[in-house]
Amino acid sequence: MKLLRVNMDDLGVRWYPVPPVYLQLGGRALIARLLLEEIPPACDPLGRHNILIFAPGLLAGGGVTTAGRLSVGGKSPLTGGVKESNAGGTAGDTLAKLGIKAITVEGQAQSGEWYLLHIKADSAELLPAGDLKGTGTYATSDRLQERYGADCTVITIGQAGEFCMHGADISVTGERDQRSNHAARGGLGAVMGSKGLKAIVIDKPLGKSIPLADAELFRTASRTFAQKLINDPKLGTKGSQHLYGTASIVGAVNEIGSLPTRNFSSGSFEGSASLRGEHLRELVLEREGKIGTRCMPGCVIACRNNYYDEDGKSIVGTLQFETIALMGSNLGLSSLDDVAQLNYICNDFGLDTIETGAALAIALEAGLAQFGDTERILALLNEVGQGTIIGRVIGNGAVTTGRVLGIRRVPAVLGQAMPGYDPRSLKGNGVTYATSPQGADHTAGNAFGARKEVNPLGVQGQRELSLKLQIIAAMLDSTGLCLFARPPVIADPQLMVDMINGIHGWGWTKEELDRFNRDVLRTELEFNRRAGITAADYRIPEYMREEPLAPHNSTFDIPDDELDAVFDTL
Amino acid sequence: MKLLRVNMDDLGVRWYPVPPVYLQLGGRALIARLLLEEIPPACDPLGRHNILIFAPGLLAGGGVTTAGRLSVGGKSPLTGGVKESNAGGTAGDTLAKLGIKAITVEGQAQSGEWYLLHIKADSAELLPAGDLKGTGTYATSDRLQERYGADCTVITIGQAGEFCMHGADISVTGERDQRSNHAARGGLGAVMGSKGLKAIVIDKPLGKSIPLADAELFRTASRTFAQKLINDPKLGTKGSQHLYGTASIVGAVNEIGSLPTRNFSSGSFEGSASLRGEHLRELVLEREGKIGTRCMPGCVIACRNNYYDEDGKSIVGTLQFETIALMGSNLGLSSLDDVAQLNYICNDFGLDTIETGAALAIALEAGLAQFGDTERILALLNEVGQGTIIGRVIGNGAVTTGRVLGIRRVPAVLGQAMPGYDPRSLKGNGVTYATSPQGADHTAGNAFGARKEVNPLGVQGQRELSLKLQIIAAMLDSTGLCLFARPPVIADPQLMVDMINGIHGWGWTKEELDRFNRDVLRTELEFNRRAGITAADYRIPEYMREEPLAPHNSTFDIPDDELDAVFDTL
Repeated sequence: MKLLRVNMDDLGVRWYPVPPVYLQLGGRALIARLLLEEIPPACDPLGRHNILIFAPGLLAGGGVTTAGRLSVGGKSPLTGGVKESNAGGTAGDTLAKLGIKAITVEGQAQSGEWYLLHIKADSAELLPAGDLKGTGTYATSDRLQERYGADCTVITIGQAGEFCMHGADISVTGERDQRSNHAARGGLGAVMGSKGLKAIVIDKPLGKSIPLADAELFRTASRTFAQKLINDPKLGTKGSQHLYGTASIVGAVNEIGSLPTRNFSSGSFEGSASLRGEHLRELVLEREGKIGTRCMPGCVIACRNNYYDEDGKSIVGTLQFETIALMGSNLGLSSLDDVAQLNYICNDFGLDTIETGAALAIALEAGLAQFGDTERILALLNEVGQGTIIGRVIGNGAVTTGRVLGIRRVPAVLGQAMPGYDPRSLKGNGVTYATSPQGADHTAGNAFGARKEVNPLGVQGQRELSLKLQIIAAMLDSTGLCLFARPPVIADPQLMVDMINGIHGWGWTKEELDRFNRDVLRTELEFNRRAGITAADYRIPEYMREEPLAPHNSTFDIPDDELDAVFDTL
Repeated sequence: MKLLRVNMDDLGVRWYPVPPVYLQLGGRALIARLLLEEIPPACDPLGRHNILIFAPGLLAGGGVTTAGRLSVGGKSPLTGGVKESNAGGTAGDTLAKLGIKAITVEGQAQSGEWYLLHIKADSAELLPAGDLKGTGTYATSDRLQERYGADCTVITIGQAGEFCMHGADISVTGERDQRSNHAARGGLGAVMGSKGLKAIVIDKPLGKSIPLADAELFRTASRTFAQKLINDPKLGTKGSQHLYGTASIVGAVNEIGSLPTRNFSSGSFEGSASLRGEHLRELVLEREGKIGTRCMPGCVIACRNNYYDEDGKSIVGTLQFETIALMGSNLGLSSLDDVAQLNYICNDFGLDTIETGAALAIALEAGLAQFGDTERILALLNEVGQGTIIGRVIGNGAVTTGRVLGIRRVPAVLGQAMPGYDPRSLKGNGVTYATSPQGADHTAGNAFGARKEVNPLGVQGQRELSLKLQIIAAMLDSTGLCLFARPPVIADPQLMVDMINGIHGWGWTKEELDRFNRDVLRTELEFNRRAGITAADYRIPEYMREEPLAPHNSTFDIPDDELDAVFDTL
């Protein structure tokens, strides 16, 4: 394995052997360590000292189902802390097959200059990409696949990243014309934009495979893993994830009163029926769209859909729960067609739908349009790509929008907007938002699945639950696994140990894996500490501690000392 | 002495005896202690848990020259930390004569409701003030003086404060039609706006004087103090402060290469000659304006001017150095008439000229207008009062403007814009900006006056100088004294001790005064620590450590460990 170091100051592209300190790391774990070792923690996230990292997980490239997610990382302009955000598509798998442990992008190109990084087998070069300036992610991906071959992987930013908007994300293509995979959170698209890097193109490695330290061990474990996923009642071909996608939970989140509605002013939405996964499935099938598609080749869960409009035209490659919550109920919209339109525009501009949905809702609360007014909301969102002043405000996310428009009800922690679970009625997620080094992020430890075991409205047990989930999330994000694939490896951690040892031959035990997972969080917390982030910065917004949320009239009432103690047993 | 507690939640106005913990405190010292004792340090600065404090200094009311400044304080929406900002006018003196140690404004009025607080001798009440909504500070002051008498003091916010813009300040009237006194820094106007308090009116106390514990001691000391000021070559009637006002230093700041020019991209401005105090004096006298006017009755320095335009119309009650730097050279403007126009609009909207000048320069760097284009700059500034989107961006200050417009060259520390001395060529001020609990603020410890003793371009001695100046500033801000009045009390601290003991009879020694001064800083640093502010938050912006500043090609190169050690000997 090797590191590909791209220096935007001198436009140098250099290969390095992997230093020992990084050898047994991948994905999120590697990102945390690289940031701690290599950048001044207090640096400007959009300045030349930040680094942008692309790293496949430890299981990438070997054909483990769901394990090809690409981790993208850097110091976040939104949170000011460590950030890892991952995406499906073919990049994780492809980089691993090329023997690339990580790409680091350092320095900054001359202001106004744009480049693309082209990686082909063992060579890589930076090429001028001024012609792509101002081009959305869909057209950029299309044009680069026309130029470099339909099988290449394209990683790109849209207009939002070019403008260095803090809500900007990074898109990753999947097989051929598969799109709509985004490393969405934390504003990493702005980091890519700040470096003058518009896109990365990776030619498909022909006939490449990763070396296996113990092929037998690996094959047995990975097959068992896949089989267990297939047999899982929720995940298999008859499971709700496959049938309805992530949208399967819209109804349940609404029922527990945690569905963000009209800028987090209610936890239940009167129009939620038409946003549910069941309705989504009906619509998609009726319009001859596709259900059960994949973000990564070989995924046995296949939770995605291809959402078509009434005229049978494909709109987005997957319409997902977080987008439906933040850009549906949270904007007072009850039509999936409307949400799909907004989703498409976000994808094209390269904008996180969570951050942008939260920002739009704040703009609506400020009176820039009515909740539910699709046309005006679309117009506001379109301004982001045009770079108008209000567009730049919204594109910079919830906190900036709240500040500019004088709105104090801003659902964000550590500068980053909350995903689709109001912490007042899913308090385990509140604990994660208020303690995760990643800021408000459901993927860092989502308590929704445990709502039967721990009362989502209670205080009891939330701290322990959040920590457990955060440790598991750290493992998944470091191995490249999809979050949905966690049941088999939680039930039997040896399966994960065997897959890792099968590829790498490290002879890890379950205890060593556990230590590895915890070390990810420790490293991230240490980075944030050095970046100047303290307990006070992690708090849930004041209004959520005081303003009761319908229908349970609950507030976020986990005491500060409980929050401060979450990592005591890390 | 008593405390006047105003609760905007229930519109209650209550008098309390001063609790022992606050008895020997005043002005900035009292603000620091009140904040530490009474608000959750991590609270939302614009939420209901913040308190807004108005406190005269320890010497107010006794007729000590220059000692009537009113300290205004609260948790700053800009810095997230402690904030004290003071203004001339008649408020400090008047409150002291009424025996009011401090007014605290707590809670928040119902959204959209506006009130004014009317204080008359021993009574105080909140009255509806919806009729004043949207009115600038000049018209508000005029209308309230018409209503309550020409001798009353009016403290008010303008449109910026109503919009809760983070650059909003608070204006205070002086004698009769005297205007243009502002507690400018830290966004305290937004705190006042967030509470629904438009204005405070204080009827002139008739025949009231403060009790003197030792009248003889007090009179001797205060007369000596005044005489020393009069005899000071810089401050007396032939001194540069009196003749040219604070603008007297424009030339010298430009000569040392520290004058902010075009968004802090140079330290010397080719058009500085026409911005100098000497030219200001010529213009004012030629137009029959006034030189040597006062912000407070009885001030022997009298550094102000009444700036008239070409047609002999009064524009602003004083045109000062910081405004000339931030809204003159920093915007590429070399005409004092232009600067005066901008100053008038800021005063009327209730906007800090430093924060707003810095924000406008960033907008110019982003291409919203050309540096030096008076007309477009005026139009941009006017948008602030109209509350348009770009107006709200600029009104929220430098950091927000930089974030929205994608500009990384933002001259701010702790979220607050720098005043008129570039820290790269006046490094002592850089140390103050990077360590003061007040954020980037020259009044917290201005090294400019010591440029002959400590080389402004060197590293040596800056740390010690800054600490010394910060301790003195804490004393001045807690006693109500003007910063310009420091020479006699630095030369002979017993003078200050005698004035305090003469009024209060506390029998302080010089050592006790020194401890008092240091305690102010300790208390403020502790508040900020609890608010989650760390060393990383106090740093000078990255670009100023790397981008050399003409004409000396200097960067800010005081090592972090030097900065972290500033308060080691506090």
